[in-house]
Amino acid sequence: MARIEIIAIGRELLKGQVLDTNSHWLAQQLASLGGQVKRMVAVDDDVEQISQELRRAMDQGTRFIFTLGGMGPTFDDQTLAGVARATGRSLVLDPRALEFVRGRYGHFQQQGYVDSAEMTPEREKMAWLPEGALMLPNPVGAAPGVWLELVSCHIISLPGVPREMKAIFEQEVLGRLRQLLGTHCYLERVVRTPLKDESQLTRILGELRERFPQVYFKSKPRYFGRDVELEVCLTASGQERSEVERWLKEAEEEIHKRTAG
Amino acid sequence: MARIEIIAIGRELLKGQVLDTNSHWLAQQLASLGGQVKRMVAVDDDVEQISQELRRAMDQGTRFIFTLGGMGPTFDDQTLAGVARATGRSLVLDPRALEFVRGRYGHFQQQGYVDSAEMTPEREKMAWLPEGALMLPNPVGAAPGVWLELVSCHIISLPGVPREMKAIFEQEVLGRLRQLLGTHCYLERVVRTPLKDESQLTRILGELRERFPQVYFKSKPRYFGRDVELEVCLTASGQERSEVERWLKEAEEEIHKRTAG
Repeated sequence: MARIEIIAIGRELLKGQVLDTNSHWLAQQLASLGGQVKRMVAVDDDVEQISQELRRAMDQGTRFIFTLGGMGPTFDDQTLAGVARATGRSLVLDPRALEFVRGRYGHFQQQGYVDSAEMTPEREKMAWLPEGALMLPNPVGAAPGVWLELVSCHIISLPGVPREMKAIFEQEVLGRLRQLLGTHCYLERVVRTPLKDESQLTRILGELRERFPQVYFKSKPRYFGRDVELEVCLTASGQERSEVERWLKEAEEEIHKRTAG
Repeated sequence: MARIEIIAIGRELLKGQVLDTNSHWLAQQLASLGGQVKRMVAVDDDVEQISQELRRAMDQGTRFIFTLGGMGPTFDDQTLAGVARATGRSLVLDPRALEFVRGRYGHFQQQGYVDSAEMTPEREKMAWLPEGALMLPNPVGAAPGVWLELVSCHIISLPGVPREMKAIFEQEVLGRLRQLLGTHCYLERVVRTPLKDESQLTRILGELRERFPQVYFKSKPRYFGRDVELEVCLTASGQERSEVERWLKEAEEEIHKRTAG
């Protein structure tokens, strides 16, 4: 499976002002495509730190690196400068992106969202992309997304406003990613047990892991209490849906059998 | 300010099955103590990856490293093994921790939460701590927290069940941390403006940044719309509360003046 990393950018995350629901949402999408997110990281709006995280991800052989946030018009939106530094490229004014941003502000002016459609330096900034990158139109906001294909990996940069991030992902990223990842079936199933104690459940799961090597078993940690019923999350992936379904079904039956009072 | 990193551990985070509210909550607490979280990362339940992230954090001169999750009785709870590997220590059976865990299961049996209070290998596992570490009692669950003080940094490991993490932080970590960080005042204030367009606001903030170097200005990115009113988050910290309050008040007044229609 292709190794994936997610880098969320923004001091508001590190100060606890904003809960990072973006990385979580994206991780769900990627898991359901059969992608393997190996690491999620949040860093400050700082070119050097962004670049460092990207380089680490590339050094690990990561095939897809997503950056979230830091794509807007403000001085602390530094993501693309970080991508440029990490990949040894320049930022260049991309004609398609410039046309896109101009068109968006024209539209927003008509809608009464902004006072003027003039191309200020702050707005133009969003059209400066790492050399060779593909501009991904943003159907909701003004900041385009960016897809940079390198020899060993793809760096995909999306804005941090959740509805913009999701819209670009769904319209521009999902289809391309599906093609690159290939067809792959990933399924998960949550099984409720009558057990109350994780230290007891873990022994049973140890045996099941040997019997079902294709299935990943994870007990959900819970607090202690009289009414607790521990759950186990089963996940498996493979080429054939019928096969993956069969593994999960057999594993679930075995859990029920072994945990029955 | 002391550099801090948070490492959340658990495959469920990377698969998007669980939203990491723990790191967010902890970041809030640390910010209000004047600590500076520079990086938050989520990794898999894997000794080598946990150890790698800890080493990176130590190499960056991080003074406090928090690990969240992976402290329980199950085979995929690998955090303390990762801490041991990263710091070149062994895991040793800690007599105080053993007594604590035993006492908790005795209590849980009395409450009817578990069937037996017997010390199984899975339960005993939670009492194996990195050599030289301090056991932090868990007032809610069975897995103790761990505080490991090294020459250059402190590694503080807390369980991933949110109510256990919070309880140990509040009862065992907060007081110690306050002493180590020293008194420090950190304040934040959110200011609403009549502006609808971030590319316009950013210019004003650029000027304010020069005038108020003690204040950090961050506009909150928003989608475009007719009823949008952009907000600016101001944060500042210093030794004296009255001084920090004055900076924020003056900065807020200046924002109102410059953005007034």
